[in-house]
Amino acid sequence: MARKPAAHLERGYIGVGVLGMGVVGSAVVQALGERAGLLAERVGYPLRLTWVLVQDLQKRRRVEVPPSLLTNDFGSVVGREDTDIVVEVMGGEEPAHAYILQALESGLHVVTANKEVMAKHGPELLRLARERGTNVLYEASVGAGIPLVSAFTRDLAGNRIDSIRAIINGTTNYLLTRMGQDGLDFSSALRLAQELGYAEADPTNDVEGIDAAYKLAILAALAFRTPVTFGDVYHEGISRLNANDFRYARELGYAIKLLAIGRQEDGEVQVRVHPAFVHQDLLLAKVEGVFNAVQVEGDLAGRLLFYGPGAGAFPTTSAVLGDVVDSARQILQGGESRVPVSARGERRTKPMADLQTRYYMRMTVADRAGVLAKIAQALGDNRISIASVIQKETDEVARTAEIVIMTHRAREAAFQAALRQLAKSDVVHEVGNFVRVED
Amino acid sequence: MARKPAAHLERGYIGVGVLGMGVVGSAVVQALGERAGLLAERVGYPLRLTWVLVQDLQKRRRVEVPPSLLTNDFGSVVGREDTDIVVEVMGGEEPAHAYILQALESGLHVVTANKEVMAKHGPELLRLARERGTNVLYEASVGAGIPLVSAFTRDLAGNRIDSIRAIINGTTNYLLTRMGQDGLDFSSALRLAQELGYAEADPTNDVEGIDAAYKLAILAALAFRTPVTFGDVYHEGISRLNANDFRYARELGYAIKLLAIGRQEDGEVQVRVHPAFVHQDLLLAKVEGVFNAVQVEGDLAGRLLFYGPGAGAFPTTSAVLGDVVDSARQILQGGESRVPVSARGERRTKPMADLQTRYYMRMTVADRAGVLAKIAQALGDNRISIASVIQKETDEVARTAEIVIMTHRAREAAFQAALRQLAKSDVVHEVGNFVRVED
Repeated sequence: MARKPAAHLERGYIGVGVLGMGVVGSAVVQALGERAGLLAERVGYPLRLTWVLVQDLQKRRRVEVPPSLLTNDFGSVVGREDTDIVVEVMGGEEPAHAYILQALESGLHVVTANKEVMAKHGPELLRLARERGTNVLYEASVGAGIPLVSAFTRDLAGNRIDSIRAIINGTTNYLLTRMGQDGLDFSSALRLAQELGYAEADPTNDVEGIDAAYKLAILAALAFRTPVTFGDVYHEGISRLNANDFRYARELGYAIKLLAIGRQEDGEVQVRVHPAFVHQDLLLAKVEGVFNAVQVEGDLAGRLLFYGPGAGAFPTTSAVLGDVVDSARQILQGGESRVPVSARGERRTKPMADLQTRYYMRMTVADRAGVLAKIAQALGDNRISIASVIQKETDEVARTAEIVIMTHRAREAAFQAALRQLAKSDVVHEVGNFVRVED
Repeated sequence: MARKPAAHLERGYIGVGVLGMGVVGSAVVQALGERAGLLAERVGYPLRLTWVLVQDLQKRRRVEVPPSLLTNDFGSVVGREDTDIVVEVMGGEEPAHAYILQALESGLHVVTANKEVMAKHGPELLRLARERGTNVLYEASVGAGIPLVSAFTRDLAGNRIDSIRAIINGTTNYLLTRMGQDGLDFSSALRLAQELGYAEADPTNDVEGIDAAYKLAILAALAFRTPVTFGDVYHEGISRLNANDFRYARELGYAIKLLAIGRQEDGEVQVRVHPAFVHQDLLLAKVEGVFNAVQVEGDLAGRLLFYGPGAGAFPTTSAVLGDVVDSARQILQGGESRVPVSARGERRTKPMADLQTRYYMRMTVADRAGVLAKIAQALGDNRISIASVIQKETDEVARTAEIVIMTHRAREAAFQAALRQLAKSDVVHEVGNFVRVED
């Protein structure tokens, strides 16, 4: 469907439709109303809310919207001539994805906060936007009000990005902070987080690293200028960590964080989410509670860190409004689509088996002579050398001890093989946990 | 002088001229050459270096430039039809300011790394750019490769910014880090920094807070959308601090940082640079060495922090290239000037006398009974109440003691009056120092 290029000039405003009026949608609708003056000043032209898609037209709402603006039928509004920008704040993959497609097909600009849609369908949506001369902006999909998407598309445009290391899930960072500072175990920390509203009733997406993997896919695609989608990202959760891991980490000079790591090496891209030992001297190790932080290494800019609240209705609204202002400026300027060109072809995603890093491992072993030799043997068989050993907590009744080993750099495949070998060994009662080390 | 709007389409490239080939200029020229492919991909169109203004045409240079591109006569290149963007990396107020004016008058886009020019003449240059349908981009003028200017103009556009608290001078942060961690006094730390190349032979601009004041003027104008220039910024240096101040600060739970503070309150803008006690729980307190960090409070985005190397040829080049890419995209898109509209009128700058904050003060006093009562009296006369007192380091020979006082919130004018009163008192031998507390 072709749209008149400058319909906004005839009607005297840029029209904004909003998909969804949950917690974020309500904050966006409220801000578009209350900040109309500020936004008009920023854009240089008035913005107007033209419709809001809701599920239930009758529901009582905290934020007032003239009933004439409410609709429950996307088909009836997507083609309307009074709207230039669609803000998608429904969340979830469908129908959000389908609606964004339709909006782009109709020549509308889209601003979305939807990490799942962008992580799974980003390349397709951006291609379509370019074809239609519009744009999809998605700053709000990662890190809420922390400027990340624009950092990669604009500010760091002249850099080769070598790595991203990010704490981009507030729920898990809250859990890890409580476990590390208060010695809580995982399930107690989770209960506390649920009571405080920092974790959902079903916390799977957060604690299993899925939410972080969505966001990493989005950031890595931007940073490394190659199509990275959710399916490419290795992810592991935090539920195996226990209080001892945090104690040992601290003794060794580390914090434990759920890191989303993207790296570009030898033409391959590495994307993984897992708990990691982060050296306590790094600012990243000091990011506590529900806050997010993204550390980026650019070959010119050096090591940057972007920090802030990574979730919440108001921070998300901040990012949405930034994108709405930018979209509106693009519409006023006219011209072609501003989707940044990303001509780089696909790059191979490095398999986890090929990862090289250092490892922390904690085992319950038989408390007798010769045990360490057997463990060192199993590691040595897989060409893994030991950097340091801590032996602690002898259980006199069970005649077991806890051994903690830090390895030198090793290949993930070799380390996993060693773990299997150790699990079968008669001296190792249990491999309690292992954590990769990032420093 | 009117320019053909789409000369770049006829010639097949966007032409970039560079003013200055010092350390930064050389890195920019080198990057424009080496990264031509990356930049063309980012812009969607080729960029080409068209000329470089240098002082000495014969000088041997580390970065090679075809001699035909070198010029020492700005007048002969500013009007040339092959150039769309001028990158100003000369530094200093003049002739950089005059050259930027001429470039804008000629309809060129300008990218500058010049904090002094932007802090003193920013409003005038932006107005001229808007009139001429061009733009002045100046991300590189503050915090090198840390995205700050674009954060305010784009990402935080929907926010009311309440405050900025920034460590934006790497030299002083290095000095304060050494003084705090190694117990060095100011002059030893300065000598060390000079040996390492972190401080200049004449360090005045850095240690007196002038450099930070330039940068704060730029950030505050963006954040509060009002003309703020260097002359509006109160600034104080770090040379009064001694090792005891750092010891007491640590005991009280603070780090000492040279902070650039901007606040918006009751329609007034407050802009000041001075050493400050920063609570150790803030990430800002953990920013060490030559690094910079800018903490921004937006009413929607919440508390954000941007961290990275705030100086250096490569980080500065990162910001310059980001702006060059953005300028080139703007030129390709055509249309009007993209200088963000800042319709807000002038706002009153709050005088320092009206500041309300807490204070740390250190005094050498007579070591005898009744001294503290006299000090409390002097403070009480000025309606300042004491929050805590530390008395230390009695000098038995001189019969003096050192007293440290933390006050509750007080007005700066009252605090200064109290200081004058104490200086005249017979029990106070010397007011060693005072530092404002930010928390």
